[in-house]
Amino acid sequence: MENVDVFEILKPLKARVDDYIFRFLPENHEIPEISLLYRMMREYPSRSGKGLRPGLLLLFNRAFGGSDENALNTAAALELFQNWIVIHDDIEDQSDLRRGLPALHIQFGVPLALNAGDALAGKMWEMLWLNKSILGSEKAMAIFEEFLHMYAQTTAGQHIELAWVNDRRWDISENDYFNMCRRKTAWYTVITPCWTGALIAGAEAKVREIIVSFGMELGVAFQIQDDVLNLRGDFGKYGKEIGGDLWEGKRTLVLIDLLRKCSDGERREILNMLNKDREKKEASEVNILLELIEKYKSLEYAAGISQQLARDARRIFTESICGLVDNEQRKILLSLIDFVVNREF
Amino acid sequence: MENVDVFEILKPLKARVDDYIFRFLPENHEIPEISLLYRMMREYPSRSGKGLRPGLLLLFNRAFGGSDENALNTAAALELFQNWIVIHDDIEDQSDLRRGLPALHIQFGVPLALNAGDALAGKMWEMLWLNKSILGSEKAMAIFEEFLHMYAQTTAGQHIELAWVNDRRWDISENDYFNMCRRKTAWYTVITPCWTGALIAGAEAKVREIIVSFGMELGVAFQIQDDVLNLRGDFGKYGKEIGGDLWEGKRTLVLIDLLRKCSDGERREILNMLNKDREKKEASEVNILLELIEKYKSLEYAAGISQQLARDARRIFTESICGLVDNEQRKILLSLIDFVVNREF
Repeated sequence: MENVDVFEILKPLKARVDDYIFRFLPENHEIPEISLLYRMMREYPSRSGKGLRPGLLLLFNRAFGGSDENALNTAAALELFQNWIVIHDDIEDQSDLRRGLPALHIQFGVPLALNAGDALAGKMWEMLWLNKSILGSEKAMAIFEEFLHMYAQTTAGQHIELAWVNDRRWDISENDYFNMCRRKTAWYTVITPCWTGALIAGAEAKVREIIVSFGMELGVAFQIQDDVLNLRGDFGKYGKEIGGDLWEGKRTLVLIDLLRKCSDGERREILNMLNKDREKKEASEVNILLELIEKYKSLEYAAGISQQLARDARRIFTESICGLVDNEQRKILLSLIDFVVNREF
Repeated sequence: MENVDVFEILKPLKARVDDYIFRFLPENHEIPEISLLYRMMREYPSRSGKGLRPGLLLLFNRAFGGSDENALNTAAALELFQNWIVIHDDIEDQSDLRRGLPALHIQFGVPLALNAGDALAGKMWEMLWLNKSILGSEKAMAIFEEFLHMYAQTTAGQHIELAWVNDRRWDISENDYFNMCRRKTAWYTVITPCWTGALIAGAEAKVREIIVSFGMELGVAFQIQDDVLNLRGDFGKYGKEIGGDLWEGKRTLVLIDLLRKCSDGERREILNMLNKDREKKEASEVNILLELIEKYKSLEYAAGISQQLARDARRIFTESICGLVDNEQRKILLSLIDFVVNREF
């Protein structure tokens, strides 16, 4: 297969989506407080992300013969979903950074940031409402339904992860973790983008099932790769603090593997450090954790599982989706699948 | 006019809406964490509220000749709006109590509560999506649009109020305050319930304008009465801490009036107390504030403005809406208007 540069593919798509979003979001208001709200709503969208999700939507739409004009509004709504939900996630996870800059609640405090997240969510629903003029009421309602499903899965997955932290639970199996990731990540990162794109293009309902199987694998692969990058990434590219998940006490495949392999004494030490509240953790403790992860090669283990899941996704794609889409788009989509687990940010 | 007992009217309506909501919201899940999420989503709806908003929706629907069956789903969606948004408001305002019990973030912590609010918001949108089977796609989309407008107004109003607190601003005029209340309260408490009810019944578009004028007056009257009850209510009935707004530093008409009437020395003392963070305030300071409010009769002033706005609303209703609705419903609606400013909770 020829090499396709994923960035070169995603860049113009992301630019079109961003342009659409910035023309859609309000900018100024005669009441200065409301102008501030508008500024806050534009803050995360203005920080450059990869544009992977709206890119997948537009590319699957093209692959099934759809036009960008019909799909752009929904791709923008999906990008807004990502942007408002991470405002709330950053509060919930007590994350300090987002895309290399202070998180919104660090900049403006929790109350204003939480409310700005709600306000931005409203703009996402407004975009979905606009689909009635672009695609007709019936298709608009079908896309609305897909977003509702994604929304319910994502909040349920986020809840599971937060409940583990809240209950200081570490007796989590790989299956528990995969199950959480399928909900938290797979739907909004892969399944809904790909299927909604295909749906707009007029794909048959049976394609949805294939995309769900494909997206479950690739979505979990993406999340594991994210966990891996969190521990070994390049800050300049990754845009979050390296090791942030250890400070936040997040359950990841890396730690599940470490806790399975380490000695009883090490396990006590590890859990003692992980269970401390963020502000009571010491940098030296996080370093000990990183050394133990190195010692037991848990990053390599997690990266291996991620690769394996991506191969499974690739196989489903090759066997069941390739035949349905045109040759040029097929190559691009395969490159995107590889990018998900080979990316460095 | 005969006396109509508002509670006796609202009670069976609220019971039907609650019943609908509890059959709609999920209850159990094989994953115990998700069962907890479901329990959290049911928590606020299970605490008895007045049911004023869904009641207004159903009664306006009846008044314009509609059937409860067609309107119940939308009334339930409106009740869910109130329930999820106060989960977020309680976090933003650092409120400890809601309907006489600990706020959700006090019970479960901010991260889980914030996410449960998002999850409950998803169920509201799902209900609005269901309207397509009840009312057809076109009317479903029209109601969706009304909710989008209400949503944008409510989050903008909430933002203004939070920004004042954040910036420690007290140079707020009555007009600033009314403007904030129109957004924060009037839409979701009066305008959207009344108009959506009428819309479902098939009312003409020109009725919307009348209801907007009527609801602006009554909605602000409602908010001022809420501020008054916060300072002099009966805890058993009101269900929030008395004086809670003083602890939270909320800008209210009562305080705007007090700051206008007091001496310069008192103003310095008052602002010094109000600007302290909640946890640094003393009960004795809140008592001094209550005494100054008493001294300058600011509660009476605010209550008087509330009465005046309610009279304006009543006049609009009598002149422009009465003629459009049937005699029996008219009496009930007039009693509800009176209730808004005469309620003790």
